[in-house]
Amino acid sequence: VRPLVLATDGRAVEILDQARLPHEVARVRLESLEQVANAIRTMQVRGAPLIGITAAHGLALALRADPTDAGLEHATATLAATRPTAVNLRWALDRMTAAVRPVPAAERAALAMAEAGRMAEEEVAACRAIGDAGLAVLRALAASRPGRPLDVLTHCNAGWLATLEYGTALAPVYRAREVGVDVHVWVDETRPRGQGWLTAWELGQAGVPHTVVADTAAGWLFREGLVDVVLVGADRVARNGDVCNKVGTSLVALAAREAGVPFYAAAPASSVDWAAADGSAIPIEQRDATELTCIRGRGADGRMVQLRVAPPEVAVMNPAFDVTPAALLAGIVTERGVARASAGGLRTLFPERFAP
Amino acid sequence: VRPLVLATDGRAVEILDQARLPHEVARVRLESLEQVANAIRTMQVRGAPLIGITAAHGLALALRADPTDAGLEHATATLAATRPTAVNLRWALDRMTAAVRPVPAAERAALAMAEAGRMAEEEVAACRAIGDAGLAVLRALAASRPGRPLDVLTHCNAGWLATLEYGTALAPVYRAREVGVDVHVWVDETRPRGQGWLTAWELGQAGVPHTVVADTAAGWLFREGLVDVVLVGADRVARNGDVCNKVGTSLVALAAREAGVPFYAAAPASSVDWAAADGSAIPIEQRDATELTCIRGRGADGRMVQLRVAPPEVAVMNPAFDVTPAALLAGIVTERGVARASAGGLRTLFPERFAP
Repeated sequence: VRPLVLATDGRAVEILDQARLPHEVARVRLESLEQVANAIRTMQVRGAPLIGITAAHGLALALRADPTDAGLEHATATLAATRPTAVNLRWALDRMTAAVRPVPAAERAALAMAEAGRMAEEEVAACRAIGDAGLAVLRALAASRPGRPLDVLTHCNAGWLATLEYGTALAPVYRAREVGVDVHVWVDETRPRGQGWLTAWELGQAGVPHTVVADTAAGWLFREGLVDVVLVGADRVARNGDVCNKVGTSLVALAAREAGVPFYAAAPASSVDWAAADGSAIPIEQRDATELTCIRGRGADGRMVQLRVAPPEVAVMNPAFDVTPAALLAGIVTERGVARASAGGLRTLFPERFAP
Repeated sequence: VRPLVLATDGRAVEILDQARLPHEVARVRLESLEQVANAIRTMQVRGAPLIGITAAHGLALALRADPTDAGLEHATATLAATRPTAVNLRWALDRMTAAVRPVPAAERAALAMAEAGRMAEEEVAACRAIGDAGLAVLRALAASRPGRPLDVLTHCNAGWLATLEYGTALAPVYRAREVGVDVHVWVDETRPRGQGWLTAWELGQAGVPHTVVADTAAGWLFREGLVDVVLVGADRVARNGDVCNKVGTSLVALAAREAGVPFYAAAPASSVDWAAADGSAIPIEQRDATELTCIRGRGADGRMVQLRVAPPEVAVMNPAFDVTPAALLAGIVTERGVARASAGGLRTLFPERFAP
């Protein structure tokens, strides 16, 4: 199962509605540009790699309706405006545009769908490679702590729900499970949207032992010596190794450093913004106050309900991401191996991006 | 208004039910030892100083029913077992026991109620003095940042709801408001129980500008330079200045240090555990998983409802407190002034506690 598949009739994509997980496993069919843009905006699909792949498919669907240059421009502008932080969105749209613009309008839709499919398979391969690179890290740590499961802490959801298969931060965990390295995962709840419950659902499906904690618990966990390694994803990595990820990540990184625990971000090259000199160049999305004040879940009668935890007039600020400085990272796990979190480290693995 | 008052008939206390705030302002009458113990355990009353004062009144009520030595012992044991971390509970019970044990059983109840009342008034005076000591800190910071409100960040609720009047961390904020120093407060939501919504309600009632953020947002706030000073309360301060406070506090302290922002805990002497050499001696309460998975609030029809954000089988760990090492504190604001967070600092203000 993947969180996004092409419909069998080829005229739509079907997504797993992540706004309804873990309560309901519901697939939603998206046929139009507007439906795809709305699904990204409302986070029915989420996770930087999946946002990129979804946008690529959305562009292909849009070109079925209007393959002209004007149609192409309208579609890319609409999709690009959905979310500002994940650079995979821009990366996917740039790559799709480069592929389809040179060809006649009549051929664009089919070409676009093929290109989107190729990108999806490349992303899957990248996640699998990230899993192998991260597995080496976990193996080394497990060898130094024999006799008990390795305790991994993760923030937000960077599993297969956020990509297509394996995930980024969770790919090494799934690979560890596959090869018999015992792992237990501490899962941050990840307020305001609670993506930790998605991670718990994913890990539960895969039979990986895990425990959810409030985001506030990280200081206690580290002080008690209950965390061996931190693995998180990334929504955008700057050229110097600064990592922008779900809000709260930088606090975990500070606590990890204080405890001497290695902290890794895992991300494919599609999440690196080669034009961003450092984290300060990355726009931080501000989202609606209702993400904090309104909570959805299952009521006593089993039906889905929504409630307010605060009166509507309460002032709220809701940044969706933060930047973890490169200096706090032990490394960035990529599809080409583990890079030091620095321009030099990324250059070693991706020299073509640093060509003069 | 206070969160705890003696009933006019003298046979009960009336509390503001903090489990129902900010949705409902409801008073609850507590007449028996069991009712008082349950109110503390379920956090209908909460906040270290208020827990102490409530326990003192609970003991007085218990002695009305059974003033014998056995009754006294049963009551203190019952109340002491309600919550493990706030040292005010033990402090209050020790002081009450010392007062009533020497006198004949028939006189104990009246004496106990008088002593509990005295403790309440002393606690109010201590909070007011903490407010004045902290006000001097805020004034100095405001003077160095003229032309805009001083941005204070707080975690959990350490206002009058957690004490009786003024509060501890919020006492300097209320005093600043009284004397015309412009202050804006960033309020951490404080998962899992969301005491930030109590703080927002308190500040709103007092007309103090404030904005609620998810606990995960602190890293972003500090990095953006939006915080001038951190003020938090304390559930137990160790002799060396380590501060145990609501879970998540230590993460805020790390982020504050990283940003060069001063971090203060505010607490009366009744919150200092003079027998605890350092933070490792302080027991950390583990609370029920449902605090994370079940959320109460107001439904669309205006009625109070409860929902689950995760399936009941999800594994959860829920520590209620954490320890912030003394080295991360700029000082501890007490009723005798601002102490350096160290044994030497506390000794300077409380020499009688360090007598050989």
